[in-house]
Amino acid sequence: MFTVIMAGGSGTRFWPASRERLPKQFLKITSSRTMLEDTLERMRSVVDDPARTYIVVNRIHEQLTRDLIRGAGYQVLAEPLGRNTAACIGLAATHISRVDPDAPILVLPSDHHIARPDEFAAVLRAAAEAARDQAIITIGATPTRPETGYGYIEMGEKIEAGMPCFKVSRFVEKPDSEAAGRYLASSKFLWNCGIFGFTAGTILAEIKSCKPELFAGLERIDASIGTSDYRAVVEQVYLSLESISIDYAVIEKTRLPLLVFPGDFGWSDVGSWQAVYELGAGSYDEAQNLVAGDAASIDSDGNLVQSTGGRLVALLGVEGLVVIDTADALLVARMDRSQDVKLVTQLIKRNKRDDLC
Amino acid sequence: MFTVIMAGGSGTRFWPASRERLPKQFLKITSSRTMLEDTLERMRSVVDDPARTYIVVNRIHEQLTRDLIRGAGYQVLAEPLGRNTAACIGLAATHISRVDPDAPILVLPSDHHIARPDEFAAVLRAAAEAARDQAIITIGATPTRPETGYGYIEMGEKIEAGMPCFKVSRFVEKPDSEAAGRYLASSKFLWNCGIFGFTAGTILAEIKSCKPELFAGLERIDASIGTSDYRAVVEQVYLSLESISIDYAVIEKTRLPLLVFPGDFGWSDVGSWQAVYELGAGSYDEAQNLVAGDAASIDSDGNLVQSTGGRLVALLGVEGLVVIDTADALLVARMDRSQDVKLVTQLIKRNKRDDLC
Repeated sequence: MFTVIMAGGSGTRFWPASRERLPKQFLKITSSRTMLEDTLERMRSVVDDPARTYIVVNRIHEQLTRDLIRGAGYQVLAEPLGRNTAACIGLAATHISRVDPDAPILVLPSDHHIARPDEFAAVLRAAAEAARDQAIITIGATPTRPETGYGYIEMGEKIEAGMPCFKVSRFVEKPDSEAAGRYLASSKFLWNCGIFGFTAGTILAEIKSCKPELFAGLERIDASIGTSDYRAVVEQVYLSLESISIDYAVIEKTRLPLLVFPGDFGWSDVGSWQAVYELGAGSYDEAQNLVAGDAASIDSDGNLVQSTGGRLVALLGVEGLVVIDTADALLVARMDRSQDVKLVTQLIKRNKRDDLC
Repeated sequence: MFTVIMAGGSGTRFWPASRERLPKQFLKITSSRTMLEDTLERMRSVVDDPARTYIVVNRIHEQLTRDLIRGAGYQVLAEPLGRNTAACIGLAATHISRVDPDAPILVLPSDHHIARPDEFAAVLRAAAEAARDQAIITIGATPTRPETGYGYIEMGEKIEAGMPCFKVSRFVEKPDSEAAGRYLASSKFLWNCGIFGFTAGTILAEIKSCKPELFAGLERIDASIGTSDYRAVVEQVYLSLESISIDYAVIEKTRLPLLVFPGDFGWSDVGSWQAVYELGAGSYDEAQNLVAGDAASIDSDGNLVQSTGGRLVALLGVEGLVVIDTADALLVARMDRSQDVKLVTQLIKRNKRDDLC
């Protein structure tokens, strides 16, 4: 069995903690380890062999990643530039195919949070087994609220496959709140976790069928593996690739069996500072503040404070704020606006302060 | 004519910008110069001779003060410890008495703001002239709102003395809001600016009569002026002195004529970050934010931001906040709680972080 951790994302939703050169998966925002380390640790009970765990990163984060894993034996694949998940998964499958084209691969993002990792691992193990049989597997989290920020998967016919599992009826983009309410009430919908299972042989055959130009590029890369041309070929191929998700490129087009394994394992994609605050259950102070670093608060409730810049952060009479203090930038935001942090980074770029993004 | 600038105050109402070692008068919070420099500059049109301008400071700020005035010729008197305004004024009067006991002295705080310095200077000049005649002069600012944070002076019989002037009917401590409303409506009350005029001879005679033990101490200091014992004597005397204001010690007991000169010169004692914000008229951005330093704001209104720590401060969706960022501490406060900054410094002290106070 193999694991592929997709860690190539950039993004500044966690600005000023996250920067273009230090995206979310390299931050310690939900625990004392980076999200990538948490993901690797969580997967150890599913795929115990680091040599069968592939981390796909952007080239600018390759050294950072190698420093983080400190010779633990994980495979690191560097992309010269981000071309979305179809390219990322194709690249990993190309490498894994040379080792074992028929073993299941679990592909998952590096920057999600799982509250109950044991339940998560049990679902993944069942899903991986099902992936051996020329099927494409997805994982769906049981919804707990009418969330409009996630995509949904509608469950079809029920199948027994080690654990309960369903044919995928359809994928739904982020819904409006009325639809999200209906999905929740119907009990037929799951949150799309962006996690897939298949063999290298299966996914490469599907890429060949659905995206032949991507497959052609992957064949060129395959031919260069182990040669001195490898990096140059990967770069050349990537420059020519369309940026497209595996969902659009393959999953929504495939004629193979498409199965979803549901699970209630406390999944969150940790999409904003507000999500970080909400995940802090149990770590709040008596005024429901979630504080990391040096802080002092008076008459202040429900705030998220992170001080990594070495300063004392003092709050007086404030509620529902996000205060993120770093060495060179400080964010003070109303928590329910924290999904709009990108507006700040856009403004900073317009002000020619790219150094801070 | 002489000026005495009382710059001996400590205090952390402007924490984290102000510290025990860097009180308000040494901060640039209402202009691009320190409040002490603004006060000195403002007084130049009243007393043009720096040698006749005495700055009384705490010893720990003596070097800071000398650095600030850079050899401009001002007299600097250092107190070994703060003993309130009676001691401060007594010390200055003792020195000035040796130069000219019959010349008027204008005594004023170093950390107030005056919106209309020309009108202020005209009132001070008239007040100083009146102080030649064995009288004690005070200055009162025309109230513009029912302020409960200031003391008041009730005007009695009107007198012509160059400019309109009144006998002081009584001094009133900070009133409740009902009383403050009545004072404003009556047009008989002025805000007590804490500014006095008298000759050295007059005030020393009054100190002798009202506070003989203070006078005895001042006599010992007087005898040591110009000798190598001076600093030791001042320290010894100060250690024995009661901490009492000139108001309680002398002004409210004197039998001399007590006059108040009213003026509408835009006075503020700048008592909190909120006052700093309110004094910023004309410097607000289009969303009524008052910003000093590097900042970027999105959908944020009516905030005071000071970034002196070299960081970019980004605001997102916040209103009515005070955000003060310094090298080692950050304050985020609701502006209408900014008079409670002392609660923060008290908490920090309890947490054994005196280094930040």
